[in-house]
Amino acid sequence: MHRVRFRDPAGSVRTGQWHDDHVSFGGETYSLAEVEILPPCEPTKIVCIGRNYADHAAELDNDVPDRPLLFLKPPNTLAAHGDTVTLPAGKERVDWEAELAVVIGTQARNVAAEDAMDYVAGFTCMNDVSNRDDQNKEQNWVRGKAFDNSAPLGPVLATPDEVPDDASVELRVNGETKQSSSRDYMMFSVPDLIEEITTYLTLEPGDVVSTGTPEGVGPLSDGDHVAVEVEGVGVLEHDVRSAE
Amino acid sequence: MHRVRFRDPAGSVRTGQWHDDHVSFGGETYSLAEVEILPPCEPTKIVCIGRNYADHAAELDNDVPDRPLLFLKPPNTLAAHGDTVTLPAGKERVDWEAELAVVIGTQARNVAAEDAMDYVAGFTCMNDVSNRDDQNKEQNWVRGKAFDNSAPLGPVLATPDEVPDDASVELRVNGETKQSSSRDYMMFSVPDLIEEITTYLTLEPGDVVSTGTPEGVGPLSDGDHVAVEVEGVGVLEHDVRSAE
Repeated sequence: MHRVRFRDPAGSVRTGQWHDDHVSFGGETYSLAEVEILPPCEPTKIVCIGRNYADHAAELDNDVPDRPLLFLKPPNTLAAHGDTVTLPAGKERVDWEAELAVVIGTQARNVAAEDAMDYVAGFTCMNDVSNRDDQNKEQNWVRGKAFDNSAPLGPVLATPDEVPDDASVELRVNGETKQSSSRDYMMFSVPDLIEEITTYLTLEPGDVVSTGTPEGVGPLSDGDHVAVEVEGVGVLEHDVRSAE
Repeated sequence: MHRVRFRDPAGSVRTGQWHDDHVSFGGETYSLAEVEILPPCEPTKIVCIGRNYADHAAELDNDVPDRPLLFLKPPNTLAAHGDTVTLPAGKERVDWEAELAVVIGTQARNVAAEDAMDYVAGFTCMNDVSNRDDQNKEQNWVRGKAFDNSAPLGPVLATPDEVPDDASVELRVNGETKQSSSRDYMMFSVPDLIEEITTYLTLEPGDVVSTGTPEGVGPLSDGDHVAVEVEGVGVLEHDVRSAE
């Protein structure tokens, strides 16, 4: 089942079902034009993974890490399916990064990899929008990765059984394919990532672990339309504009 | 006025007044033994500053940055006055870092330094507990700085007028003074920090900006009792234990 959070015509936030051309909740159906799609969860934090596909590490001239490279996106970074992302002002290069994102279902600490999927509610799509100007100049990627609306997320929460182990991860800009890879090229698997993160941090229900991006990143421009597709989840779409 | 969040004997969370040897709310008074002191706010993120006192940068052999060094502590890091902080397991060196912490009162984005204090609810004390083993080995300080209970915060929220511009910032371990400095040795002031952060990130009411630590950091051990004192706020105290 594909669950979707949305604001109904009365302004109430509902968690209902996604049916591609409409959504439903409590016996009512709504066209997509009638509702505002919201991120599928309400994370207290998004824990992101850098360089988790060897081909992407190579394209940025980075070594492959011997343990997961972690960084954080706080809740101010969230954006939803259908939203317009405003690029940070005055930057030369702000990139797209398509990712498979894991949504936590149950509070988790010190979880072994073999048990990790018991703590997962499901999967969604994320674009880890990245401000390279600052990322390349700072120790911690805060200006580079934690700026407002740098984490479009959605459109739905798909249960783990709906997303195959070799699910494709793709990104298109204005209809042209820019990234095309598969979940089974990840270096650290979802269970391994949850084990490593929960050795240090408690993950809360609704928190997100975003699993890194494959080869094919590139710069976003004013007016771009972005589509992130994860097999078994669907397509997250958003627009892009420059700051005024 | 010193505001305090606490859990009353019935388990309800209240925001009342601090009177050093008791707290009050709604005409009732409670001894400190009757209540559980909570962090004075509920941040969606803590934005921390590294190397904001030149003497501390020097003691760690670091250059003084030309703009604020930012890093993040998510909500899982919170601990309160009177709590016991469990050190992350198997680490050689986990340090104390006394800090003056700013609590945001009004949602803020693109705020100029000259207007920044309009967005501040007040000040409190923080211990930026730091796992050096991992901090020194990772790009982003997640294992190093964002582990559970690495941000004891409190005990109260003091209004800005109660904290002088040259407020002392001190830390004692088991009664012995380890850090002793003053707010006016900061390189980037509170208004400058708010301007820089809100150029990129929206700060929410309850969010915290922790302003960096002065010279005198050192390792915590099982059984330590820590006191962080900021002039005009009061004393944040917590215990420390090793992981089992």
